[in-house]
Amino acid sequence: MNKGLFITFEGGEGAGKTTVLTKVEQWLQEKGHALLRTREPGGITIAEKIRTVILDIEHTEMDGRTEALLYAAARRQHLVEKVLPALKSGNIVLCDRFIDSSLAYQGYARGLGIDEVLSINEFAIEGHMPDLTIYFDVDPEVGLNRIQADHIREVNRLDQEKLEFHHAVKEGYRQVKSRYPKRIHTVNANQSIDEVTEEVIRVIGEQISYNSR
Amino acid sequence: MNKGLFITFEGGEGAGKTTVLTKVEQWLQEKGHALLRTREPGGITIAEKIRTVILDIEHTEMDGRTEALLYAAARRQHLVEKVLPALKSGNIVLCDRFIDSSLAYQGYARGLGIDEVLSINEFAIEGHMPDLTIYFDVDPEVGLNRIQADHIREVNRLDQEKLEFHHAVKEGYRQVKSRYPKRIHTVNANQSIDEVTEEVIRVIGEQISYNSR
Repeated sequence: MNKGLFITFEGGEGAGKTTVLTKVEQWLQEKGHALLRTREPGGITIAEKIRTVILDIEHTEMDGRTEALLYAAARRQHLVEKVLPALKSGNIVLCDRFIDSSLAYQGYARGLGIDEVLSINEFAIEGHMPDLTIYFDVDPEVGLNRIQADHIREVNRLDQEKLEFHHAVKEGYRQVKSRYPKRIHTVNANQSIDEVTEEVIRVIGEQISYNSR
Repeated sequence: MNKGLFITFEGGEGAGKTTVLTKVEQWLQEKGHALLRTREPGGITIAEKIRTVILDIEHTEMDGRTEALLYAAARRQHLVEKVLPALKSGNIVLCDRFIDSSLAYQGYARGLGIDEVLSINEFAIEGHMPDLTIYFDVDPEVGLNRIQADHIREVNRLDQEKLEFHHAVKEGYRQVKSRYPKRIHTVNANQSIDEVTEEVIRVIGEQISYNSR
């Protein structure tokens, strides 16, 4: 019987995270693993309603700490209702963004402080840190060009913010990685999607072997 | 010129808090003080929307930690948009429930832990603790009888919960008071409303004298 395995995917905009996630998902399914692919708010009613409050375009005046608390609240409910039951049933859970996004974006790039944002997220996740985190490390220029050239999706509000902000996010992730060097595996996401996919599959394969010992 | 003064009112159900607050408000107005009387979410759009998520009757499955994070988020926005500007303008702010309610109700009575709930609230209030807190200490039996006998308002969900829970809230407030013995002034709310009002006005009067030195 497999133990559950909690794997998160992190990185800046245009890092190829979602494309690679889909390939990893297919690979795991072919290998016969029970899995759940998700991202917050993930169809969880309460988490969806919280996200609606965060994203309401009327809310230009939302305070940064209010926003961070709301992200933590949505994270908590998604974790309790969706991630933990799947792990308990022995699934591999692939989650597109989790705690490290809050630490890098709100904590570092938005200036709330990594320790401060960590404290409310520790309350939210109650010890359920990922077993493995894949960090897609992309140069902001490469990432933004990829989004605009490939028309992967519409350019959104975050993309439009200054390149400076994306560099801050990258530095934020670097600091988060230095706190959790064993959990976070950094992949050079400036490489081609195929090269990135190959590396991610290798790392996840090793974690599965380790986990089933 | 007066400095701002931040005063919060705390206590269990049926303690006479709201009635006394109205009398205190009148007294302060007669004395010519600029004041703001408020309670979360206090008409602040974002805070109101967060409260709507908390109180949605479909949400019987809301996790206790999610709820505590949402209360902290609504508190933050109400503080930033309403309380802090009023204090900055030199107002006396009377706030019906604040951080101690979360510590006593969620932290102690609901079992999340006073330290844990304090950590997310410290993030939310960023050092803006009340200058003075009046705690209306009422025996749960007296409080519930008052609500039911006086038909002050409809008996609500909280009232209907077991008397045991109200005793837990009272114990929670006792523990919170032991952490902040200087800030929190306990009033015996089993006394008549007139007696309680007299004591509260005396304590607030002393605080105003102290504050204007």
